Amino acid sequence: MASVKINPDLAKERKSASFDCEALTEVVYGGKENVRRKRYLQNIVFQDKSMQSFPPWWNRDRETLYDVGIKKSIYMIKLIKQLNIKDLSDIFYIRGALVSHENFPLGIHESMFMPTIEKQGTPEQIEKYLTPARQFKIIGTYAQTEVGHGTFIRGLETMATYDPATEEFIINSPTITAMKYWPAGLGRTCNYAVVMAQLNTQGKNMGIHAFVVQIRSLHDHKPMPGVQLGDIGNKLGFNGMDNGYLIFNNYRVPRDAMLMRYAKVEKDGTYVAPKNAKLAYGAMVYIRAMIVGSMGISCAMAATIATRYSAVRRQTEIRPGGPEPQVIDYQTQQEKLFPMIAAAFAWQFTGNFMMAEYNRVSADIEKGNMEEYQSLHALAAGLKALSSDIANEGIDKLRRACGGHGYTHASGLPKIWTHITPACTYEGENTVMYLQCARYLVKVYAQVSKGQQLPGFMSYLNKPQKPKSSINEAIKMEDLTDLYEHASVRMIQVAATRLLSLLKSGNSMEDARNLCGVQMVEAARMHSYLYTVRTFQSVIQARASDPKVAKVLTSLCQLFAVNGILQRLGDFLQDGFLSGQQAAMLADRQLALFADIRPNAVALVDSFDYRDEVLESCLGRYDGNVYEALYEYAKDSPLNKQEVSPSYYTTLKPLMEGKLTFDTPTARL
Amino acid sequence: MASVKINPDLAKERKSASFDCEALTEVVYGGKENVRRKRYLQNIVFQDKSMQSFPPWWNRDRETLYDVGIKKSIYMIKLIKQLNIKDLSDIFYIRGALVSHENFPLGIHESMFMPTIEKQGTPEQIEKYLTPARQFKIIGTYAQTEVGHGTFIRGLETMATYDPATEEFIINSPTITAMKYWPAGLGRTCNYAVVMAQLNTQGKNMGIHAFVVQIRSLHDHKPMPGVQLGDIGNKLGFNGMDNGYLIFNNYRVPRDAMLMRYAKVEKDGTYVAPKNAKLAYGAMVYIRAMIVGSMGISCAMAATIATRYSAVRRQTEIRPGGPEPQVIDYQTQQEKLFPMIAAAFAWQFTGNFMMAEYNRVSADIEKGNMEEYQSLHALAAGLKALSSDIANEGIDKLRRACGGHGYTHASGLPKIWTHITPACTYEGENTVMYLQCARYLVKVYAQVSKGQQLPGFMSYLNKPQKPKSSINEAIKMEDLTDLYEHASVRMIQVAATRLLSLLKSGNSMEDARNLCGVQMVEAARMHSYLYTVRTFQSVIQARASDPKVAKVLTSLCQLFAVNGILQRLGDFLQDGFLSGQQAAMLADRQLALFADIRPNAVALVDSFDYRDEVLESCLGRYDGNVYEALYEYAKDSPLNKQEVSPSYYTTLKPLMEGKLTFDTPTARL
Repeated sequence: MASVKINPDLAKERKSASFDCEALTEVVYGGKENVRRKRYLQNIVFQDKSMQSFPPWWNRDRETLYDVGIKKSIYMIKLIKQLNIKDLSDIFYIRGALVSHENFPLGIHESMFMPTIEKQGTPEQIEKYLTPARQFKIIGTYAQTEVGHGTFIRGLETMATYDPATEEFIINSPTITAMKYWPAGLGRTCNYAVVMAQLNTQGKNMGIHAFVVQIRSLHDHKPMPGVQLGDIGNKLGFNGMDNGYLIFNNYRVPRDAMLMRYAKVEKDGTYVAPKNAKLAYGAMVYIRAMIVGSMGISCAMAATIATRYSAVRRQTEIRPGGPEPQVIDYQTQQEKLFPMIAAAFAWQFTGNFMMAEYNRVSADIEKGNMEEYQSLHALAAGLKALSSDIANEGIDKLRRACGGHGYTHASGLPKIWTHITPACTYEGENTVMYLQCARYLVKVYAQVSKGQQLPGFMSYLNKPQKPKSSINEAIKMEDLTDLYEHASVRMIQVAATRLLSLLKSGNSMEDARNLCGVQMVEAARMHSYLYTVRTFQSVIQARASDPKVAKVLTSLCQLFAVNGILQRLGDFLQDGFLSGQQAAMLADRQLALFADIRPNAVALVDSFDYRDEVLESCLGRYDGNVYEALYEYAKDSPLNKQEVSPSYYTTLKPLMEGKLTFDTPTARL
Repeated sequence: MASVKINPDLAKERKSASFDCEALTEVVYGGKENVRRKRYLQNIVFQDKSMQSFPPWWNRDRETLYDVGIKKSIYMIKLIKQLNIKDLSDIFYIRGALVSHENFPLGIHESMFMPTIEKQGTPEQIEKYLTPARQFKIIGTYAQTEVGHGTFIRGLETMATYDPATEEFIINSPTITAMKYWPAGLGRTCNYAVVMAQLNTQGKNMGIHAFVVQIRSLHDHKPMPGVQLGDIGNKLGFNGMDNGYLIFNNYRVPRDAMLMRYAKVEKDGTYVAPKNAKLAYGAMVYIRAMIVGSMGISCAMAATIATRYSAVRRQTEIRPGGPEPQVIDYQTQQEKLFPMIAAAFAWQFTGNFMMAEYNRVSADIEKGNMEEYQSLHALAAGLKALSSDIANEGIDKLRRACGGHGYTHASGLPKIWTHITPACTYEGENTVMYLQCARYLVKVYAQVSKGQQLPGFMSYLNKPQKPKSSINEAIKMEDLTDLYEHASVRMIQVAATRLLSLLKSGNSMEDARNLCGVQMVEAARMHSYLYTVRTFQSVIQARASDPKVAKVLTSLCQLFAVNGILQRLGDFLQDGFLSGQQAAMLADRQLALFADIRPNAVALVDSFDYRDEVLESCLGRYDGNVYEALYEYAKDSPLNKQEVSPSYYTTLKPLMEGKLTFDTPTARL
């Protein structure tokens, strides 16, 4: 990039920063060595010509999107093996450089198909299925979701009926709603699937079990007889992924298709229940922590694009005859950008911190201590929902903050948003997630009422309540967290009290829970926000040794907290803990924080360290040559392939010549 | 639809309604005759085979999207002429049946190109340009926006320099930022454009003027020499529209290219200023009113889809072993659906009402009374912003309320959302709109402080302020509007006071306005919400003669008001006008309103009267056969054209056979 002319506004912004950008990058990635490693690994990908030769993603048709996805998937898997990479961060660095917000049709083979067999298979099954899977002789997906059944696993309808005469399972989709729908890689790629189905043996339903099922011929890739499948069609995004549908018509598989490490079906059909029914909840915490971190990364990429563009874009003279100012100088623009810069740090830090907590608490579990695990499991649900909600809403806001140009794929913002918005519904729909978190909160709140002391983070529920917030113009972090703690406790109390009163008036637990759903969601949201504010603060304390970096991060952490309060001001004012005067003061302080952050804005997003190859944005380019890039983008439009469109000859020319006739319905009028 | 099996849940919902659906449809469309007319006109389109033969929009590539757009545009224009339709509602009915949320590349020819010539041209120019335009010999666009210049018109850079030697204007794009970017139909369709450019004559810049410029050959449709143009590339949506770019390289046009009804350039280059410099602001109010109404229609369509699907979809047993309930029975789902049903009515009614107000106030202007016009102009800006913000956020929420299935184009929701979200940035970016509204509010607030009485709706600023809200469990509409009035007055006051104090401390007006931008936006938002609540209520009073219909609409109006308060609760609590107890009561009342509305939900969305052909949604079908439709949709995927994808042969097969090699960068490691 060194030889390219840098837009003078961006150059000026970079000089005005109060801190060393590289030092902040080291905080973001957890140290100098990690930054070096990230750049080293990503450069391997950037320098690889075979991965640079595809048509740009915004001009790929569906077939090409898929084809590029396949090729990049395989390349990545091979590269990771060749480099003998095991560390998750390293994998993310490579993935980030290669398929940022694109799809990865072989991902589920690695992340779900093989691990499920490894965990739930007998040694013989592992040998039978895993060895060819590792060699890609078989490529698998994980087929759980059905078109009529998502979150509620026990409701799945796919049947696996054991036939002792032939020692086979008969897999069947008895209804239209039993059709598998959505599994990744199922539509075109996979020849095997782990199929989750109701097990029926000796006339009894034994619940959901996993079956390894061949779905396509290993010879010619055609669907097996008795199996109907395909891609589910075009979507808002994820069009490089062949999400699929799958219907079984009394399809027979051998007995050892059922993964039998725990539960078993013997040759005669006798069902042997698993000895240890414990479920692997750990994996869910882990996946949700990853989602939280990836929301942070997506916010950071979108904030980079919108902030750089806002520094380059000039609009509307503030003073008659004066120059048009940079739009980043408008207070209303700062309100759109800066809270999202803060959120980008908050969610990246929280994702990292959750991983560390997961490892710490997992070690506790080994020692038989489950207490903190439950709190972490509940939190992971709440944080997954909150981070994806904020990313969904915030990234769309950043897109609109770029005006009309945000709407074209040239901005790179629609790509990010369409890729992350499914995180609001996959891996647990967000409302269901908040409710899961809230049920735990209401439960432990009852324990606190009985005087029980809660462990770790949850212990804020044991604190004595202050009557009034002591927040003042200094907006100290402890006063800000106090506000969140107070609001969270109050809202858990509101939900718990309503629940109790509904139970007392004769409702079943299930009905009572439904009838305080809205309040439970709100309580879980506040609890999750509190955790994020605290984590942001603790990461600054732990990682930001450079005082200038610590200062700018503290402003962002304050903004994250203050903005969160102002967004839900009623929750803080309602019982008078925060006064109206304090609320007005916080609104003023937010504006003052905007002014604090303003000179550092571009350097802050630079510190996220995303290369232009990753951002793929005309607006977010490091060099700020936005308009030249928009021109090049336009010329490359698929509609510009010919100088004159085919529609001219078929339609416009006859229209202009007065020769165009339609079979119009005049006769009928 | 009569012969099709109706999903039993939907059938049950329709029976449970407390009101006559058809009677409500008549309220929505403003009377029985309008409903009849709408159905009559739409049926003409639905029955027309030539318009039913296109591939479904979700499977169209860019070229086909554009081609279908062209054909439907022309068909519509011809049909309207054949039927001799003049009434705007009639045009909307036809358009709604034909191109609901699709694009219309010839639209700007009718809506901007021809009207601009008609209004700003001399009789000779009208004859020269309009006659061939009416016959489609020339097809035009309106080229104002430049890649570097949007909202601020005076900042446009395209130059039109008069050359008296040849009596021509030299049109030029002096910089990259001067490139025209975004004009509709410019990319592929139009051979003419009204170009907005800086006029330079006799060495002086005379500001922005309009020029009628030929951009493509009438012979072969190729760009004229000196003109470079094309499509601007793929976007998040609007891909049936050929938004274009346009660069002039000292391109010469005759003197009569400049529209000279008002300002003139004489043969020798003498500039004659227009006698009457009044701008046609009326058109802006009119267009914004149309946007408000269309946001209501889009909310209604999305709410229809999500509500019907929520009645059909069943998920998670509430009681162990019991049936899975309809998701519409979850309180948290009701919170997503019902406020948007209310919003759909609110914005349709407000759009209609604004049109009527526009006509009434326009008549006043004829009499020289501009007072109310300014208030309407400010309101139109605020309402355009508020309605598009609510539609943007709410329709996306409805999409997510459909879980994973909302994300596929099968749901029809991404199509609606991607089509309406540009309304947040076009015809005046929303923040700019709020600020425009707020500047008026701050101005008249100063007049009120001086004792001046304001006309019409604005007179609420003159009312004496109550100390406390009298809202109670009855949630009377007058108490609800009182709350909005109070909050609006307070927030205008906060913005005005801050502005004054910034001016006193030495800031220029421009800087002071910028430094209270956030508060100004919030004040304008509250003012606009108040107007909508009041309009909703007044339309019920005026139109809903059937008491059962009036009752259910009143519940929705209350919900619209209560939900709006709870969304911005801090604004109502901050000065103690609303108490914490009242706030808690309102939260409870909202839940009670959900329960009230629940049995009527499906009938309410049925009353919007959208045919399946218009919704184009597997989830929102009238018959509720959702899963069968999703199956058909999947089979039709472009990836399923061949039984086995080309990628299998080129990539997967070699991978499976261990023969796939990449030029991987191992050597470099």
